[in-house]
Amino acid sequence: MRIPHILFTLAGLLLILGGSLGLPLIFSLIEGDGLSGYFLMEMAALLAVGVILRRILPRPEHLALREGFLIVSLSWILLSFLGSLPFILSGYIPALTDAFFETMSGFTTTGATILKDIEILPRSLLVWRSMTQWLGGMGVIALAVAIFPSLGVGAGQLFKAEAPGPIKEKVSPRISQTAKILWFVYLVFTVSETMLLMLGGLDFFEALCTTFSTLATGGFSPRNDNIAAYPSPYVHYVITLFMFLAGANFNLHYFMIRGRLSAYGRDSEFCFYGGITLLALGTIVLLRLTAGTSLSEELFRSTLFQAVSILTTTGFITHDYETWPLASQVILLFLMFVGGCTSSTGGAIKNIRVQILLKHIVSELKKLFRPHGVFPIKIGNKSIPEATVSNVMGFFVLYVLLFALGVLSMSALGLDLATSVGSVAATLGNVGPGLGEVGPVDNYSAVPALGKWILSFLMLAGRLEIFTVLVLFLPRFWR
Amino acid sequence: MRIPHILFTLAGLLLILGGSLGLPLIFSLIEGDGLSGYFLMEMAALLAVGVILRRILPRPEHLALREGFLIVSLSWILLSFLGSLPFILSGYIPALTDAFFETMSGFTTTGATILKDIEILPRSLLVWRSMTQWLGGMGVIALAVAIFPSLGVGAGQLFKAEAPGPIKEKVSPRISQTAKILWFVYLVFTVSETMLLMLGGLDFFEALCTTFSTLATGGFSPRNDNIAAYPSPYVHYVITLFMFLAGANFNLHYFMIRGRLSAYGRDSEFCFYGGITLLALGTIVLLRLTAGTSLSEELFRSTLFQAVSILTTTGFITHDYETWPLASQVILLFLMFVGGCTSSTGGAIKNIRVQILLKHIVSELKKLFRPHGVFPIKIGNKSIPEATVSNVMGFFVLYVLLFALGVLSMSALGLDLATSVGSVAATLGNVGPGLGEVGPVDNYSAVPALGKWILSFLMLAGRLEIFTVLVLFLPRFWR
Repeated sequence: MRIPHILFTLAGLLLILGGSLGLPLIFSLIEGDGLSGYFLMEMAALLAVGVILRRILPRPEHLALREGFLIVSLSWILLSFLGSLPFILSGYIPALTDAFFETMSGFTTTGATILKDIEILPRSLLVWRSMTQWLGGMGVIALAVAIFPSLGVGAGQLFKAEAPGPIKEKVSPRISQTAKILWFVYLVFTVSETMLLMLGGLDFFEALCTTFSTLATGGFSPRNDNIAAYPSPYVHYVITLFMFLAGANFNLHYFMIRGRLSAYGRDSEFCFYGGITLLALGTIVLLRLTAGTSLSEELFRSTLFQAVSILTTTGFITHDYETWPLASQVILLFLMFVGGCTSSTGGAIKNIRVQILLKHIVSELKKLFRPHGVFPIKIGNKSIPEATVSNVMGFFVLYVLLFALGVLSMSALGLDLATSVGSVAATLGNVGPGLGEVGPVDNYSAVPALGKWILSFLMLAGRLEIFTVLVLFLPRFWR
Repeated sequence: MRIPHILFTLAGLLLILGGSLGLPLIFSLIEGDGLSGYFLMEMAALLAVGVILRRILPRPEHLALREGFLIVSLSWILLSFLGSLPFILSGYIPALTDAFFETMSGFTTTGATILKDIEILPRSLLVWRSMTQWLGGMGVIALAVAIFPSLGVGAGQLFKAEAPGPIKEKVSPRISQTAKILWFVYLVFTVSETMLLMLGGLDFFEALCTTFSTLATGGFSPRNDNIAAYPSPYVHYVITLFMFLAGANFNLHYFMIRGRLSAYGRDSEFCFYGGITLLALGTIVLLRLTAGTSLSEELFRSTLFQAVSILTTTGFITHDYETWPLASQVILLFLMFVGGCTSSTGGAIKNIRVQILLKHIVSELKKLFRPHGVFPIKIGNKSIPEATVSNVMGFFVLYVLLFALGVLSMSALGLDLATSVGSVAATLGNVGPGLGEVGPVDNYSAVPALGKWILSFLMLAGRLEIFTVLVLFLPRFWR
């Protein structure tokens, strides 16, 4: 491990974080909420330290694999600490545990909150809160790779360690170009959704915050009632559309922007993702109808909204799904495990992994009565290499194991079964709201401090797809 | 599919079932409970049909792979139907759904019961109820293979499709010899435990019934209060010992009987199994102490008993574990997924599969920073072939998938979350008692009829390790 190389790379992230604080600073100055000093101070400190480190340290020619993994995990922890300072200094979230939880929940696009009253916070802090999600959504490392091409050889590996999905497709042979393209699409969507929401009656501040959290599949809202605060069906549909897009592969969106709309239909994972959405929608509508809810546009809209919100791991709420029949809640719980697509901003296991797992089962069944047959796994018209299948299996086992250990820890801390299951599934999958006492109309404030640190760890592990974080716990990694 | 071949093999099972009815017939004659006629009638019918079929049908020289799978699943369903007749005819369990559930629960050694008052049943029916477990424990097919060496080439494959664990070790190169040895050890244990329990004050009937259900890791008891009906600590320890042995590899017991006691210590899976038992014991004792239970021999004994009972998937009860802290119940729930060892009578995923899953995770983590390294999976000093690892992964995914679909179905039928989770984990793992309304002091009578059929299916899938049953649902299987 070469510490100077690691520090040099982290310095780039300090610059990005420092620069990002400009937005809440502007809101703070406009509103005159008295927090400008804090934002300015932290901004100056981060930029100064970042610039100095990049001046005095040697520019790394090449990052080793292990350095890359360490940098990615360290970056996310560091950002969550530094990002929580405005909440702590302003006194709105005075406890470090709570502020760290909230910021980790932001950067990892989880959207779980410890705030009982969100609207009491000044707009500058709320926009920062949503902005952490936006930064984490497409990935701060990806942003660094796009901005500082100097990362060189190590860039590809940093990018891979942060990017979601088992198969890293590149729209461009050059990593920095790929990162630029993804962030470009992200920006186009950000401008589009903000404008569409303003057409629906939201003011610029609310439209921007909501957009930040939509495209990151984050789930933070500046309103206590979350999206239920906006009665307009138009707003619900706009958000549903952009949640769905954010949970899909951004490479496809890039093709779409370039006029190749057919890319969606040709992508097996996208079709699977759409299929799961429709299946969940249909089943939950049926269950709710059977339970006595009358057929209406509202029934369809609220079901679609919640299904997409949970599947994409956004966690926005328009309707308290804990009032729905238990089986629909179980379906939502399963969706928390599926999550978004490769190269999306969605979390959890990802659709392509679920596809590979299902195809693997069928292939094993076929082997039973054709023991000498070879049944390679194909997704669309692509053969999945054995090594990838093996990796996906390992990921799934690890995901289930972390889930089980998480549930055990939370129940040992005194949470009830539904709350333990819900809180762990919702943080590990970067969803946000869970079940029980951390359900859609509740928050995480009552979770014991130790529980908040465990859940913060699960958010990080979930966002970085577990392997990247857990590899640091392997003794052999440090030899 | 050659129907005559399939019928010829099934005829052998009819003979075994017919012969087995001799034991309840004897109890019925001694007690004069008026049920002898039913037992005699069914016994005669089964023996007659069995003999006739084996006379008129051609003896199969060779069974095809697919015929083997079909025979195994068919056998277990047929046995559960035929085995339920005494309950239905006698009028003690008049409904087919209930009687089939109870008998499937017996043969699969699950031990879930729909009986609210067990002691109202005559001894002949109770001994039959426990005997179904004993027959299913070591496997009716294995018994058929031991008794009818005529099964020839197909025998090995039938045996494999029924025997638990991903790696089928044989103590003898000949399958019929292996089956004979396993059944011999099983008989030795049966005689030993029965005598030890009688020394503890149980009468022959109760000792025999309890032994049948212990060695099969079944869990049926002739008493309403299950094992809690016997206050003697000695009895609890004897049962704990035999549950633990029944959940271990019977090949090791054979070596032990032949004087090679060291085989236990050299078997990696056995050590893992012992380790999990101690870990669960220690953790649950700590949790119960923290929750205010005072330190006593009873605390140790009841925790050990329940941990072993659940881990081995027996499901005997001396203590209502739903009064324990939630985290200990969560641990018990996890144990329901682990289960027994290869070639044991225990159910669920099995220890060796859990070992392979864990080692696979570590191997994938190592590959992250040594991408060109090769990290083969070793259990003890044996290398596990890639194909086995792949099969174990598929099994795990399928197990989790069936569990998820089961929970969804049960919650859709109106069961609460804890009951849905508990009932599915307990039937799929062949444990018996679950959580919530199917907990240790409850029973399955209140589950809706459709739910009982679904749970019966899960018991069968669990006992035959899923693949054997699910392969029949593959369209390609029938081509």
